[in-house]
Amino acid sequence: MKIIVDAMGGDKAPEVVVSGAASAAREYRVNIELVGIPEQIEPLLKRHKNSKDLISVYPATEVIQMSEPAALSIRKKRNSSICLGLNLIKEGKGDAFFSAGNTGAVVCASSLSLGMLPGTERPGIAIVVPTLKGISLIIDVGANIDPKPMHLLKYGLMAEAYLCHIFNRYQPSVGLLSIGEEASKGTDFVRETHRLLSESRLNFIGNIEGKDLFSGRCDIILCDGFVGNVALKVSESLAETVYTFFKRHLKGSFLGMIGAAFLGASFTRFKKQMDYSEYGGAVLLGVNGVVIIGHGRSNELAVKNAIGRAKEEIEHKVNERIVEAISQIGG
Amino acid sequence: MKIIVDAMGGDKAPEVVVSGAASAAREYRVNIELVGIPEQIEPLLKRHKNSKDLISVYPATEVIQMSEPAALSIRKKRNSSICLGLNLIKEGKGDAFFSAGNTGAVVCASSLSLGMLPGTERPGIAIVVPTLKGISLIIDVGANIDPKPMHLLKYGLMAEAYLCHIFNRYQPSVGLLSIGEEASKGTDFVRETHRLLSESRLNFIGNIEGKDLFSGRCDIILCDGFVGNVALKVSESLAETVYTFFKRHLKGSFLGMIGAAFLGASFTRFKKQMDYSEYGGAVLLGVNGVVIIGHGRSNELAVKNAIGRAKEEIEHKVNERIVEAISQIGG
Repeated sequence: MKIIVDAMGGDKAPEVVVSGAASAAREYRVNIELVGIPEQIEPLLKRHKNSKDLISVYPATEVIQMSEPAALSIRKKRNSSICLGLNLIKEGKGDAFFSAGNTGAVVCASSLSLGMLPGTERPGIAIVVPTLKGISLIIDVGANIDPKPMHLLKYGLMAEAYLCHIFNRYQPSVGLLSIGEEASKGTDFVRETHRLLSESRLNFIGNIEGKDLFSGRCDIILCDGFVGNVALKVSESLAETVYTFFKRHLKGSFLGMIGAAFLGASFTRFKKQMDYSEYGGAVLLGVNGVVIIGHGRSNELAVKNAIGRAKEEIEHKVNERIVEAISQIGG
Repeated sequence: MKIIVDAMGGDKAPEVVVSGAASAAREYRVNIELVGIPEQIEPLLKRHKNSKDLISVYPATEVIQMSEPAALSIRKKRNSSICLGLNLIKEGKGDAFFSAGNTGAVVCASSLSLGMLPGTERPGIAIVVPTLKGISLIIDVGANIDPKPMHLLKYGLMAEAYLCHIFNRYQPSVGLLSIGEEASKGTDFVRETHRLLSESRLNFIGNIEGKDLFSGRCDIILCDGFVGNVALKVSESLAETVYTFFKRHLKGSFLGMIGAAFLGASFTRFKKQMDYSEYGGAVLLGVNGVVIIGHGRSNELAVKNAIGRAKEEIEHKVNERIVEAISQIGG
């Protein structure tokens, strides 16, 4: 098994990507091809001699920056690590692609290079989030900002296959993100999607609200990519804001500072549970290949876990399960 | 000045509404008319004898429940506290209306009873949220889930007038909630709104992302009511989730428990800063009258602060300022 890794993607690339890839190669015993500027990658690789046999470098001459417009950048930079990495997958020279780079560019290039799975029209980004009861999967968090109701039904089937085979959840419950629980609540798009989901074989529990996103009320949360992206970014930043507020208040009092001194271990465990990097990045479902997208701020652990997640997705043949599930719609 | 208060609205009505109204009457020296079932209100009022001269009761025979469909409920229950309360405003028998009841019903009934301010087509719910730098105002958080770009421009002008006169912010900065900072990011609706805002006289800083909602990056955050509602509910629940996670982790260790024992005061101050009830509820802007909507979970403090906010809005003639601002569009 070979995982193709965009060595140039992410705020702390290539350093953390190379380190994370080296850890993953050792821990999961997978081959890794790092795609990027050799002059930048090779000196970093020397620090990881015990992963040497498992890692190779594939040269790219261009890098797509985080802020570049997605469609334009992949047309202009055909020799970028993202475009070349996905070409390797297309040519059968790798089994999965990971990038913590420009999400829009990865989504566009994946759709164009790999094409869609039979029966799917649009890819969706699925992300695992921690909840009070364990984890939930939210799809879509930004690939498809103006979807049709049928796309959300298919996201539901994709997410079900994913959760079933990667997290062992049989018949996971599915909720539709809206602004009230009644079927009549929400935009025309949400109401029509509600109807489609109700008629499907999914374990659909109806509309859920923003407050249910982290309550663990359902296993899968469906939404359009615009709302999902906003909700995800609000929650990422709010967790940090709450943290900052709290630390500020602790520092404001003598007793608080004494208290804080005792809290080290609890803080660390708490942060670990809230940390997206523990859960292995976001998964681009619907494309004809295994593609994992890391957060731009991915650290070494996040890169390692994302590669581990890619390996599981390949081993469990999640894409084959998705094609089966989608072929049965209306059948 | 007389504030009309829906005594029956909210999860803990009428108890907390009556207590909050009594506190507000004493603190702000305003007259209050409590609209609701007299048999339920009057025994509670006996506990607040020192507010007696400032509070009267206006009988209603019906109550709109939190879960009832908005439009239907106000058609069917014309003798509800919400409908009768707003009629009092319409007839000039009160200067502002407060309810912590069914938000949809309050929005519908306000629009129908009071009509819109000259030049406005749709009301928007504005809510003040705490940020790392102070406060920001988000509009719309649920009144208008399928707005036109022009509605958002008008929300911007309404919010500007509000922040300027209530919070003394001159030329507050305005951001448009999207999924990327570039003008090209987002749905067609967001892009067209971006263009309108760029051409307006507002202090428009461009698109902002979900992560900026609590960063204090801009004073006013514009969004459609669907996205705003989801974002608000996600953030309310996430603050609680972070809290619960954290407490769970503290309880999991001996040192954590010792630490927690020292944290009482810091926790309390932290919660106070994060607490929406401190900021006096949401404001329904655009209708021809002063309407404040409380959270369903409003406590006595939230009710009192919301009534104080209503008083300020009347005193500063915010609606006159809004009409002036909107009359100048394109002028």
